[in-house]
Amino acid sequence: MTLCTGQAFKEVGRGRYVVIEQSSHSLLHDGWADLSRARQVERFKSLPLGEAKKFLMELTTWEQARLLSALPDEDRWLWLPTLAPDDTADILQEMSLEDRELMLQHLEHSRRDEVVGLLAYKRDVAGGLMSPRYAQLYSDMSVAEALTYLHRQALGDSFAAETLYYVYILDSERRLIGVSSLRELFATNPDQPVNAVMHKDFVRATDDMDQEQLSLLFAEHNLIAVPVVDADGKMKGIVTIDDIVDVVEEEATEDMQKMGGSEALNAPYLEIGLLSMIKKRAGWLILLFLSEMLTANAMSYYENEIARAVILAVFVPLIISSGGNSGSQATTLVIRAMALGQIRLRDWWRVLRRELLVGTVLGTIIGAIGLLRIVGWQALFHSYGTHFYLIAATVGASLVGIVAWGSVAGAMLPFVLKRIGFDPASASAPFVATLVDVTGLIIYFTIAANILRGTLL
Amino acid sequence: MTLCTGQAFKEVGRGRYVVIEQSSHSLLHDGWADLSRARQVERFKSLPLGEAKKFLMELTTWEQARLLSALPDEDRWLWLPTLAPDDTADILQEMSLEDRELMLQHLEHSRRDEVVGLLAYKRDVAGGLMSPRYAQLYSDMSVAEALTYLHRQALGDSFAAETLYYVYILDSERRLIGVSSLRELFATNPDQPVNAVMHKDFVRATDDMDQEQLSLLFAEHNLIAVPVVDADGKMKGIVTIDDIVDVVEEEATEDMQKMGGSEALNAPYLEIGLLSMIKKRAGWLILLFLSEMLTANAMSYYENEIARAVILAVFVPLIISSGGNSGSQATTLVIRAMALGQIRLRDWWRVLRRELLVGTVLGTIIGAIGLLRIVGWQALFHSYGTHFYLIAATVGASLVGIVAWGSVAGAMLPFVLKRIGFDPASASAPFVATLVDVTGLIIYFTIAANILRGTLL
Repeated sequence: MTLCTGQAFKEVGRGRYVVIEQSSHSLLHDGWADLSRARQVERFKSLPLGEAKKFLMELTTWEQARLLSALPDEDRWLWLPTLAPDDTADILQEMSLEDRELMLQHLEHSRRDEVVGLLAYKRDVAGGLMSPRYAQLYSDMSVAEALTYLHRQALGDSFAAETLYYVYILDSERRLIGVSSLRELFATNPDQPVNAVMHKDFVRATDDMDQEQLSLLFAEHNLIAVPVVDADGKMKGIVTIDDIVDVVEEEATEDMQKMGGSEALNAPYLEIGLLSMIKKRAGWLILLFLSEMLTANAMSYYENEIARAVILAVFVPLIISSGGNSGSQATTLVIRAMALGQIRLRDWWRVLRRELLVGTVLGTIIGAIGLLRIVGWQALFHSYGTHFYLIAATVGASLVGIVAWGSVAGAMLPFVLKRIGFDPASASAPFVATLVDVTGLIIYFTIAANILRGTLL
Repeated sequence: MTLCTGQAFKEVGRGRYVVIEQSSHSLLHDGWADLSRARQVERFKSLPLGEAKKFLMELTTWEQARLLSALPDEDRWLWLPTLAPDDTADILQEMSLEDRELMLQHLEHSRRDEVVGLLAYKRDVAGGLMSPRYAQLYSDMSVAEALTYLHRQALGDSFAAETLYYVYILDSERRLIGVSSLRELFATNPDQPVNAVMHKDFVRATDDMDQEQLSLLFAEHNLIAVPVVDADGKMKGIVTIDDIVDVVEEEATEDMQKMGGSEALNAPYLEIGLLSMIKKRAGWLILLFLSEMLTANAMSYYENEIARAVILAVFVPLIISSGGNSGSQATTLVIRAMALGQIRLRDWWRVLRRELLVGTVLGTIIGAIGLLRIVGWQALFHSYGTHFYLIAATVGASLVGIVAWGSVAGAMLPFVLKRIGFDPASASAPFVATLVDVTGLIIYFTIAANILRGTLL
């Protein structure tokens, strides 16, 4: 929980402003990312301790790691223990192995064990997201004992406010056997046993559950917190919904970046190094370029047709891009629906039927516009010679086929990728466009050969 | 809070399964969307009441609205009052105005007032997201009185478990003057006044704050709940983080769908009607097609050059698609960074510099590959005649320029759109590709004219 001070205006939508209470340290954030590490350290050390603490809490994990790495030793001794163990583990995971070792030495023994325990998990599984601090009770307690016990835990600050939603009931071997809530305990006769308000059927996650699955679990059951257990059913920690918001943002960002045709950056745009940025983008760009080279082969293959009817080349960009656009629409809709759990692998047939239908209708609309464009231009400028109606028919028919094909190919690609074990989000708009470009040329020139044979060809 | 029963296997990643506790009614969800409304009603009514309630709670708002509209009157009398007022308002907003009126008649007077109050807000502002139920105290209470008062509120079930994080302290005119938490009250001497544990500096939102702004507020301050006040500072309700998860998902979905080149669907992929689907996609597709027609004009303009050197046409798809791909990468990265608050309007110059640099490096890599491809092909197949080195130089130089231009144009477009008041996510990959296609042709043929003049042209 962060309580903040200061008032500011914030823009909401076009030119409308509302007054919101804003943290004074938001102002400190301004331009923060632009500073060199040395200047960041200087600015941070110039803050009064109270403000410095708030400021540190509000930095992203990435920025916290940067700052802590840059701080001199004596400051690390001060700051590192103020962070929660799960946050500490997240920060250490952003650091190099050497820096990580260095930081661990700044923690006292029991805290270090907690953090090392969390570091054993990958960052994107339940174990890596969980907090090892939660409100716990034992099943043989009475409600009155339970409340006193919780009261003591709350006073001891061994768990944060957000972990008070649910209370977890363990057996003598720390296996999780039930869940209750402070509200329920609060509303129960104190003489009753804890068992009386304990729910035995509840949602739990295993520590190796993937974070994307975990966020679907939260969404599906409208949960605030989920307990995490190991393979033996022993309680390891809890994941709270505020961590899931970050997961959802992060997964959406990764998906979007992949869908835009680059690797996931895993860092804020302005903060990632130029070399990393180039590396993350060059791979896909080169791959797409190599695939797109097939268009040069296809075009070479039809070089004679183009030489005889240069007019055919004129419409190539228009035609292939239309396929790319409809493919991009379809692939984006399908990838997102998959990520949200709206479409599963076995729905491929329903999606295929939908896209075939939608794509054909869209293709007919686009084809009709293309046809009218050529006929209209001919009427106005006489650009396309006497066989203009054949050209119009070629372009129109090709557009129907290519837009429909683009929709189907774009929609099916994520299914294929998912089926063979890849991330469906890799079916980026550029990837689909490239795929459709090559096949689109073949469709176009095949239709042209059939319609124009004996006249232009 | 939803506690669920039953056990199932869930796939996490390729072929790995974990056992998770899963709700028995998840099985009921399977194929739910495929059913006709009549069959849905039948299936719903066949459930025991307890299960039916759980099932209803787990449906999406959209599905709840569909189901409730289809239920006979007597069932609506039963079910509608079991929903929280904010959920009821959300559901009603998915319905037609007539259905809405009909539903409101099924609520008792005071509940109807609450729901109508919430319906006055748009769905995507703080007022439309908030719950009118929260834990409240008055500033003249002692901590002991406060705990008793809260206890009574908890027993009365006037607020749900997730609203117990924070406690809001009001003055006699219901203006919000402070915030505390159950944990803090719990850990304070009962004789102290509530003032002693009240924070006066805290984050709040006005009821007309846009949901995207609101979710940034949650993220920035790591909050679990935010109080919502009207223009006079009077307490209206609270927005909790579980609603924000939905907002984040929803905003990401809208952005992705726009970035893929269609309008936001605002409904699950498999559930939206075919006609709506076509409408949402046809608009942009037509607009893009009309813009892309400029490529036909550009190509016509260079028809003589193409007639003299057909080889130029061969590389057109390869060259323009490379610009589209680099533009798509840049625009996606920038739009997402904007949505996450990592980039603001005034950062345009820094982004421009970055993209110019990154784009030039990427262009040089791609250009070099293009050049090698032509030289290599020539060595192997003698495809490009005696002037192959000039063609290689033309293609290579064009690729450098077009990839760099694509990156810059793709990155700047979201800034332009945002500046003139549009959603930056409208700078979809297809939109950027279209823009870059037209300009890319001009770059290509201009470079060709300069390099090939006197030889091929």
